[in-house]
Amino acid sequence: MRVLALLDGTHVDPESPLLRADDLGVQRGDGVFETILAVDGKPRELQPHLDRLRRSARLMDLRPPEDADWHRAVGAVLEQWPWESEPELAVKLVCTRGVDGGDGTPTAFATGQSLSAELLRKRDEGVSAVTLERGIDPDLTERAPWLLLSAKTLSYAVNMAALREAERRGAEEVVFTATDGSVLEGPTSTVVLAEGNTLVTPPPSAGILRGTTQGALFRAASTAGWNTSVEPVSVERLRTADGLWLASSIRLITQVHTLDGERVTVDPELHRRVRGIYEAQY
Amino acid sequence: MRVLALLDGTHVDPESPLLRADDLGVQRGDGVFETILAVDGKPRELQPHLDRLRRSARLMDLRPPEDADWHRAVGAVLEQWPWESEPELAVKLVCTRGVDGGDGTPTAFATGQSLSAELLRKRDEGVSAVTLERGIDPDLTERAPWLLLSAKTLSYAVNMAALREAERRGAEEVVFTATDGSVLEGPTSTVVLAEGNTLVTPPPSAGILRGTTQGALFRAASTAGWNTSVEPVSVERLRTADGLWLASSIRLITQVHTLDGERVTVDPELHRRVRGIYEAQY
Repeated sequence: MRVLALLDGTHVDPESPLLRADDLGVQRGDGVFETILAVDGKPRELQPHLDRLRRSARLMDLRPPEDADWHRAVGAVLEQWPWESEPELAVKLVCTRGVDGGDGTPTAFATGQSLSAELLRKRDEGVSAVTLERGIDPDLTERAPWLLLSAKTLSYAVNMAALREAERRGAEEVVFTATDGSVLEGPTSTVVLAEGNTLVTPPPSAGILRGTTQGALFRAASTAGWNTSVEPVSVERLRTADGLWLASSIRLITQVHTLDGERVTVDPELHRRVRGIYEAQY
Repeated sequence: MRVLALLDGTHVDPESPLLRADDLGVQRGDGVFETILAVDGKPRELQPHLDRLRRSARLMDLRPPEDADWHRAVGAVLEQWPWESEPELAVKLVCTRGVDGGDGTPTAFATGQSLSAELLRKRDEGVSAVTLERGIDPDLTERAPWLLLSAKTLSYAVNMAALREAERRGAEEVVFTATDGSVLEGPTSTVVLAEGNTLVTPPPSAGILRGTTQGALFRAASTAGWNTSVEPVSVERLRTADGLWLASSIRLITQVHTLDGERVTVDPELHRRVRGIYEAQY
């Protein structure tokens, strides 16, 4: 099931063409996006997602639509969704730089899509991951903003290629590492680990996205009495942590059970607690 | 002026939508492209461009259309072009991974577009460029193929952001540098320098595209009695070279007259010779 809505709230046939061949989103991957989970009619963390989209757009000198426009498009997607048969929905917001040589009006729309069976399986069963070099220095983000390291752009070919490399290695997910061996992020997720009563994630300053799901988890965990820490993390710590997860809007807090072919600690009770803390806030 | 053709040779209105919202070219910058100059009805270096497109596709595990299909699409673009009023044309080939969750059929098309007045001005007058860190190690390409460093993908947001950074610095072009300070390439061009009777360009193994225009220039220069060398180049050598150019299909062999705010050697006679050697082969 797919639905597609424009910013004026109009529904459009998702199987009909929408973008011109010379749209810069197509020609150059020149645009930004966000993916948002909606459950039983309600989008999760909509404002943090809109804030991040705006931040990504600013890093790209792109003027995104107003929040009110996105609210209208998201509303149209939610309104058309068959909630009774499908209680969960992935909403994607896309904003490109518009047509090449045009007047600068961005192309923007919201789509809604069913969650695949494979995705739901990964949520339940966890994933095996491999570490892959991202080839960047962790202090590069501030020094070289043109590398767009902390923007969620439509230029995701490398992220997709990394996931194919994981598959070739018999795994399902990737943890990118920086040139100093420190942990960055997954191609479409944030790395979270538990050490005793502390949840840890690497800092956005290292050239990674601020995770909205990780942010929501840390907010709730903090209220529930956990310590939370945003700090550089070595790969070694992933192996010795009490729990390791990849957090993302749609896959939620997915447990990593295997890293580079070796089992890491999997504590079902801890996983239930962490997932529970996250879920309890919605 | 714009024209648009599909692989079966059909002409399509370039101002009508062509791609679905869930095309992976739009959603993930997941595809490859080539830009080819055609002059007086003839495309230049078509086969090297098709070969490079195939190579880019292979690096992305993408199965591109057959050359015969591209020939048909390019033929349709050339056929519709008003050569008498516009003797030059930029032909772009685009191939995406197709629709998300689809049957894997790529989305492919060819467009034709007029050359902008600004582009023609740069060809004639040369450009000022700035060096910008690309943040990668030159020996990363082989070690980390998932970074797609030598594939011409649709994920060009960083290349575009670098050009905006150049503009902010009062320049028009960029020369990317690696972590060891060596020269890589421009965001959409290959770096070429002249030292005495030798033309020099950095090696593709450093994580850059093989330049089709640079390749054509070196082939012709070699026949014309020049030495050509593909070797690591320091930024310092750009400053002391007898001539410095950015080579690309559409802008051809564009002279760089200023690097990081300082004039570099501009020898109009040398420029005429080099451009002449390149042009003489067509």
